[in-house]
Amino acid sequence: MRFVFLVSELCQENADVPAVTVRFFATRQESDTFGPLDVPADRYWGAQTQRSLQNFKIGGRAERMPEPVVCAFGVLKRAAAKVNMESGYLDEKRGKAIMQAAGEVAEGKLLEHFPLVVWQTGSGTQSNMNANEVIANRAVEILGGELGDKSVVHPNDHVNKGQSSNDTFPTVMHIAAIQEITGRLLPALTSLYEALEKKVQEFNHIIKIGRTHTQDATPLTLGQEFSGYATQVKYGIERVEGTLPRLYQLAQGGTAVGTGLNAKKGFAEAVAKAVADDTGLPFVTAPNKFEALAAHDAIVEASGALNTVAVSLMKVANDIRFLGSGPRCGLGELKLPENEPGSSIMPGKVNPTQCEALTMVCAQVMGNNVAVSVGGSNGHFELNVFKPMLINALLQSVRLLGDASASFTENCVVGIQADEKRIAKLLNESLMLVTALNNKVGYDKAAAIAKKAHKEGTTLKESALALGYLTEEDFHSYVRPELMIAPSA
Amino acid sequence: MRFVFLVSELCQENADVPAVTVRFFATRQESDTFGPLDVPADRYWGAQTQRSLQNFKIGGRAERMPEPVVCAFGVLKRAAAKVNMESGYLDEKRGKAIMQAAGEVAEGKLLEHFPLVVWQTGSGTQSNMNANEVIANRAVEILGGELGDKSVVHPNDHVNKGQSSNDTFPTVMHIAAIQEITGRLLPALTSLYEALEKKVQEFNHIIKIGRTHTQDATPLTLGQEFSGYATQVKYGIERVEGTLPRLYQLAQGGTAVGTGLNAKKGFAEAVAKAVADDTGLPFVTAPNKFEALAAHDAIVEASGALNTVAVSLMKVANDIRFLGSGPRCGLGELKLPENEPGSSIMPGKVNPTQCEALTMVCAQVMGNNVAVSVGGSNGHFELNVFKPMLINALLQSVRLLGDASASFTENCVVGIQADEKRIAKLLNESLMLVTALNNKVGYDKAAAIAKKAHKEGTTLKESALALGYLTEEDFHSYVRPELMIAPSA
Amino acid sequence: MRFVFLVSELCQENADVPAVTVRFFATRQESDTFGPLDVPADRYWGAQTQRSLQNFKIGGRAERMPEPVVCAFGVLKRAAAKVNMESGYLDEKRGKAIMQAAGEVAEGKLLEHFPLVVWQTGSGTQSNMNANEVIANRAVEILGGELGDKSVVHPNDHVNKGQSSNDTFPTVMHIAAIQEITGRLLPALTSLYEALEKKVQEFNHIIKIGRTHTQDATPLTLGQEFSGYATQVKYGIERVEGTLPRLYQLAQGGTAVGTGLNAKKGFAEAVAKAVADDTGLPFVTAPNKFEALAAHDAIVEASGALNTVAVSLMKVANDIRFLGSGPRCGLGELKLPENEPGSSIMPGKVNPTQCEALTMVCAQVMGNNVAVSVGGSNGHFELNVFKPMLINALLQSVRLLGDASASFTENCVVGIQADEKRIAKLLNESLMLVTALNNKVGYDKAAAIAKKAHKEGTTLKESALALGYLTEEDFHSYVRPELMIAPSA
Amino acid sequence: MRFVFLVSELCQENADVPAVTVRFFATRQESDTFGPLDVPADRYWGAQTQRSLQNFKIGGRAERMPEPVVCAFGVLKRAAAKVNMESGYLDEKRGKAIMQAAGEVAEGKLLEHFPLVVWQTGSGTQSNMNANEVIANRAVEILGGELGDKSVVHPNDHVNKGQSSNDTFPTVMHIAAIQEITGRLLPALTSLYEALEKKVQEFNHIIKIGRTHTQDATPLTLGQEFSGYATQVKYGIERVEGTLPRLYQLAQGGTAVGTGLNAKKGFAEAVAKAVADDTGLPFVTAPNKFEALAAHDAIVEASGALNTVAVSLMKVANDIRFLGSGPRCGLGELKLPENEPGSSIMPGKVNPTQCEALTMVCAQVMGNNVAVSVGGSNGHFELNVFKPMLINALLQSVRLLGDASASFTENCVVGIQADEKRIAKLLNESLMLVTALNNKVGYDKAAAIAKKAHKEGTTLKESALALGYLTEEDFHSYVRPELMIAPSA
Repeated sequence: MRFVFLVSELCQENADVPAVTVRFFATRQESDTFGPLDVPADRYWGAQTQRSLQNFKIGGRAERMPEPVVCAFGVLKRAAAKVNMESGYLDEKRGKAIMQAAGEVAEGKLLEHFPLVVWQTGSGTQSNMNANEVIANRAVEILGGELGDKSVVHPNDHVNKGQSSNDTFPTVMHIAAIQEITGRLLPALTSLYEALEKKVQEFNHIIKIGRTHTQDATPLTLGQEFSGYATQVKYGIERVEGTLPRLYQLAQGGTAVGTGLNAKKGFAEAVAKAVADDTGLPFVTAPNKFEALAAHDAIVEASGALNTVAVSLMKVANDIRFLGSGPRCGLGELKLPENEPGSSIMPGKVNPTQCEALTMVCAQVMGNNVAVSVGGSNGHFELNVFKPMLINALLQSVRLLGDASASFTENCVVGIQADEKRIAKLLNESLMLVTALNNKVGYDKAAAIAKKAHKEGTTLKESALALGYLTEEDFHSYVRPELMIAPSA
Repeated sequence: MRFVFLVSELCQENADVPAVTVRFFATRQESDTFGPLDVPADRYWGAQTQRSLQNFKIGGRAERMPEPVVCAFGVLKRAAAKVNMESGYLDEKRGKAIMQAAGEVAEGKLLEHFPLVVWQTGSGTQSNMNANEVIANRAVEILGGELGDKSVVHPNDHVNKGQSSNDTFPTVMHIAAIQEITGRLLPALTSLYEALEKKVQEFNHIIKIGRTHTQDATPLTLGQEFSGYATQVKYGIERVEGTLPRLYQLAQGGTAVGTGLNAKKGFAEAVAKAVADDTGLPFVTAPNKFEALAAHDAIVEASGALNTVAVSLMKVANDIRFLGSGPRCGLGELKLPENEPGSSIMPGKVNPTQCEALTMVCAQVMGNNVAVSVGGSNGHFELNVFKPMLINALLQSVRLLGDASASFTENCVVGIQADEKRIAKLLNESLMLVTALNNKVGYDKAAAIAKKAHKEGTTLKESALALGYLTEEDFHSYVRPELMIAPSA
Repeated sequence: MRFVFLVSELCQENADVPAVTVRFFATRQESDTFGPLDVPADRYWGAQTQRSLQNFKIGGRAERMPEPVVCAFGVLKRAAAKVNMESGYLDEKRGKAIMQAAGEVAEGKLLEHFPLVVWQTGSGTQSNMNANEVIANRAVEILGGELGDKSVVHPNDHVNKGQSSNDTFPTVMHIAAIQEITGRLLPALTSLYEALEKKVQEFNHIIKIGRTHTQDATPLTLGQEFSGYATQVKYGIERVEGTLPRLYQLAQGGTAVGTGLNAKKGFAEAVAKAVADDTGLPFVTAPNKFEALAAHDAIVEASGALNTVAVSLMKVANDIRFLGSGPRCGLGELKLPENEPGSSIMPGKVNPTQCEALTMVCAQVMGNNVAVSVGGSNGHFELNVFKPMLINALLQSVRLLGDASASFTENCVVGIQADEKRIAKLLNESLMLVTALNNKVGYDKAAAIAKKAHKEGTTLKESALALGYLTEEDFHSYVRPELMIAPSA
Repeated sequence: MRFVFLVSELCQENADVPAVTVRFFATRQESDTFGPLDVPADRYWGAQTQRSLQNFKIGGRAERMPEPVVCAFGVLKRAAAKVNMESGYLDEKRGKAIMQAAGEVAEGKLLEHFPLVVWQTGSGTQSNMNANEVIANRAVEILGGELGDKSVVHPNDHVNKGQSSNDTFPTVMHIAAIQEITGRLLPALTSLYEALEKKVQEFNHIIKIGRTHTQDATPLTLGQEFSGYATQVKYGIERVEGTLPRLYQLAQGGTAVGTGLNAKKGFAEAVAKAVADDTGLPFVTAPNKFEALAAHDAIVEASGALNTVAVSLMKVANDIRFLGSGPRCGLGELKLPENEPGSSIMPGKVNPTQCEALTMVCAQVMGNNVAVSVGGSNGHFELNVFKPMLINALLQSVRLLGDASASFTENCVVGIQADEKRIAKLLNESLMLVTALNNKVGYDKAAAIAKKAHKEGTTLKESALALGYLTEEDFHSYVRPELMIAPSA
């Protein structure tokens, strides 16, 4: 063991820190087919990882391969070792050590050993090797060997046995996507849906003015308005769920170009089953491995569903902030929860900050969908080489939509209150209730009533009485918003 | 009847023609609540259509409301008249005349009477009124009345009975989208899938070099390569079909804000059934009308599926043109049909023009998906007012993808031939077959063979024999590409 | 001359018309290197155009090559003939006839002779040949020859002399883009800017409540608010103008791959000068022809500027419709012009239809920018083959933005009135004016005044007097919105 | 000081770490107008920052506000303190301490004290308060006070003096964007341009086959081909520079809504000057503050320029990887540097990994441009509230493009070598050189030569001699590629 000044690692991890800082690392030597290389002594990664760190100084720490991908590598490598052991291609001793090490990766315990950025080889080869190297060295350690001693456990021959980067990376893309979608996004959307549905019930009796073209229109209930939002979210859940069947397909077993060369017959099916058993999720082997390596349409499809959800939530959040605008000079129909000081000098000012965070997320998700589409469309021949970008953008969209939906639900939706007084005032002042008179006094007289009220700034009733078209009693018996919120019998 | 010089109509229809042309139209007078207006005597449209022509001189003839939307209005108005007649809200005489006139619209016979551009009121109100006016006047004509005599048939009171632009336009959006998707796009994609599947069979015996990272890799069959394309298209069909359930939902019956005010109970369901009966397609009434008016997530979702299909086809068409590149200095594995002179001086030059048309279409579809997403996200309160843009962009994507897929299938895919000689030559020259020797002479010696061949520009066999690692006989028995295209037993 | 039933031409021109219609055309025979072909007798186009019609049945009439491209071909071919004549490569008789024929194309007189759709060869070769064939045949006619007699005037040898599709199409892309941008878009944006500036002056005295986060904030004048819009448009004009220098560069002279093979030295410069002289616009020859053929970054750049303008106008139009929302239940600060009936039953309802048309256009422009970016990024080697799509999307964006800006200016902006009464009411009811008291009674007491007013729904003055913090006289002397609309001295 | 279990801080910083980990922090109490709150004792931030941490658990550490924004806050707050001191609004003692503390922020020394994520209030208020709180507490420390003692230095009254989040955040957006563009992106693009220009010189003598439509075409030099790439990058630099004038405009001085209320006259200009002096960059005060707060068109414009650069680099990187494809079965004209093992079993396989990283970056930049456009288009009234998302996406694009260009230059471009043997072989085998014979034996005979060669797989010369159209001597004197790479005299 010796100490050297590792500029590359430094740059990678601290690229924005002024260069005056000098850190010394204890190092050990690792090697690959290009020769030996110093790596930090306290890290499990090997030469190929270190080489990638030096060759791809793009974006720094914030651009590291997303953690769900790292954890999915743990899941996959554990499954592969299990299958290889059971079919006799890997001895029990190594196999068990690999499974234990891979398990630690799957549980997120070794994240600091995965320093590579997204912007590397487009096949994700270097992250696959990062996983192989870390798992191998950790397994070496478990078996009492010395880090870097590949004779104990070899990253390629043992950890990567029967695999290729070209099938492992697509496999972890799907595992990670499924885990984040089913574990983070769908629960958050479901909570949002339930919170909105509660508001539908809570607001069902409150009749309010409708607005079309942003202009006053005929009335509806606030519950009906929220039922539109709830329906959007419910359909959004269905849309995301509709993309899962193709995400459950795993590429593992296709190896380098989809033919499965160097893998054993049955390996593909067995690994998919092991991953399914391990995660409790219905993964299957992809029926066509050529498609599974050369294209990532399933990722593009999933991103499209997220895009639609973003479009929906943008609408919902926009409506809520406009309905909550005010307190005096806006629409003022909703009272949104006060979560933080809006301004030090303007009391009563509640900024719809949760709506803002959510709509910003939606914009990013819409952009990521284009990034994913461009990357997905640019595959060539047997391999799409936009893989790390694709899964990074998808996972960011999943996480942001999930987290922001949860935050929006908890910190905004559940606390929304209706300002019933204001709602009633607007409803009663509106001229659109005149519609109810069409069948009583005829369209022309109704129009005259409305036009007079509009021109003179009076209420409909005042106008109607002034024109002498009907009595106050008649007016009250005809102009009843509660009869205007459903089809007639 | 009198003659006037109609500048507005002129500008609308011939905006790019130098203004020196002067056309005189016979006109008649029509009127709406804003007053009287001259319209061309030989057109069925009325005052509101004419007013829109004058107020929205945006884009000219090329930007007219798409024909499937016009035809869908015919379908809807016929269904509404039928339901209104059957429930006694419309007398038989008018009802039948309206149904006949609407039928002509549905069959595309009155397209020249629909001059409005997409870029109008965001609710499509003006196109709804265009339909009402044209159908009313045509019905008047059928009944022997004088054009413009609303006492015979009234655009609002009779044709639009129980309807609002706010529910009719979303309804025709869905009818038009479904008709174009099921009648144009899906058949074209199915033909493309079938043509690709035929090539899978035809090319199944041809072993070729694989390419990953655009670099030589291990072999596969040309049939396997095409099976990836076929799978992409098959999944694309599934993706598009997966969006149909929500497109089959019709907004009709929601009227102005989703409550159904002024419609009769049961109208929504009856119209959906009538449209379903008429078209033979499983339309249903939308369970939540508030969502159906205020948002167009179903359109965004469908556009997302088209975007995924575009991403797939971009990959397929790119591969095919690269594999067909040459004739001497490219990859040259495929021979694409010659459909037109590629160049007047370069014989043998076949330009992959069908690939080019298709990939251009894919780029536009990817762009339209963003347009649709932006429009879909910008709804406010009870009404999204990006409706005409949304359906226009979706229908353009559907039509272009459908037509271009059909053209690509017919003029390219079915005629693709493999250049087996070239394919075999490349395969045999490649160094990647050395992989087969790993298990025979060990990795190190195999690597030495390949490196020597690469360095000296020789074949693997020459290199292997020169190094003396194995006999020619052994070489031929081990290096057999046909054993490299599947997992080992 | 003979009569045949031209199915292909029919399908192309009338693809959506029910197929029962049967049209017969008189035809003549034309030929290219692929052999003879029937073309409509009354059209100037020849065999290559006809072949394209048959091979690219994509999208029908609505998808024809945009007219500005056709006219630009006229400009270019006239310039090329002039240069070829002047340098002695083309005899005067043919040259003059070509110039006359090309002039008719440039003036838009022969549009019906350009039936090809955008979705063809990605180099635009077929539209270049369409131009060559039409100009040749029209020149033949001028010279008294028989249509199709290439010995009189040859489409390739004479009209296309010294040119290649690969340099003519990029050239007409730039000519068309420049003409539409400078002739249509920039004047429309300038008019919009001027109309907004007039409103800045007109509204300069009107103090209103500001809104941040859609919530009430400190005041500003309505003129100041509009000055933000005017500035956005002014900068938009600068942004578009900033892209012109690279659009003024013409590819002509690069011929097939950028080297200029088969063109004469000086041809590039002379043609650029002739086009500049003809159009009065400062076109120059592109310094690097390889870039000019292989990439279309200048088109992507211009589209990016249009995208920014669309983003600006989306904001402006959104603000205006929200500020004009009401009449009773919205913000109601602006009165927008009534251009058409908003609803047959809701008098006083003015729908912001011009805002809607404009924002729909903005969404499409934002989408087109993605289409252009995808197409622009996919060039390969010496030629980008997304050319027709690129120019079609750009020109649609230019035209829609130009026309919609003109319509928005004329039919909305110039007629906007302030509802000063409503504006004053909102301002005076607002709580944000309390900010003015900070320096008089201290932050804590000011906050107490505002909070009490908010809680009890009273005015600031009522609250201040009730709390006894200052007299009515003091209140009026301190709380003066007109002192709150600029930095303090 | 006391110890508490801070769940929220935990979640924020370690959201993906399994929840079994339990960390205890020493805490101190801070407070804002909403009340007291525990914050980590070793962090400078205060109550508002802590509250944001709890309310916006969106995305975790990877989604923190970008470091250039944090540093820009340091620059701005130092400038503001300086101006406030000089104009007498801030006492020297506090002013100097604030300047020192802000300086540390500017230098990136206090990054760990800025834990907030991008997905917060859309005005960036919470990050502005984070800066105010950290600088205040650090200044308190410098002055020997106790953390949290606002009487020593107050975050609002002293650090934020004369400012509002609504003008500071737009200001730091521009400072950060300018610093990253001029300090990171433009130097990297310039290096790339210079590296490409060197290749232009180096490759200028190498004549190669051209390719259009991916098909063989007439020849050009490899230097000419690279000159197209160099031109694209050069214009890209110009495009980015063209957006700087509007990015140099600072919003500071607009305060809450653009009027400058509560700021002193001259503050805006003085701060802009101080920032300019400090950074050595020509910042100016924005002429119209309403536009500067309500819209972020300058960010959208800059993103559009980055999008164009991404489009350019996608083309360049794609070409280079295709030209470098092989080694045996691709085009093989370029030899790209070997930076890492491409495959453990395929010697000679060099994967174009730098091209892959760069093209992935380009796809993300194209997506971010849509995110920025959507966010930019959604501003309302006096404030766009997509600010953190906008600057985050822009800065990611700037950084990724800058870093990836630098990596691509250093690890790929400078090391590219031409495979002259292969290039010559392809050129000589090609049929397109037949073009040179057009003027010697006429088009028809030339075509016959080429067609025969194509059909029989022979060389042009063999075919020409077999046909007897010209002698070997003539052939060699006429068919000279070096005469085909420029216009004729």
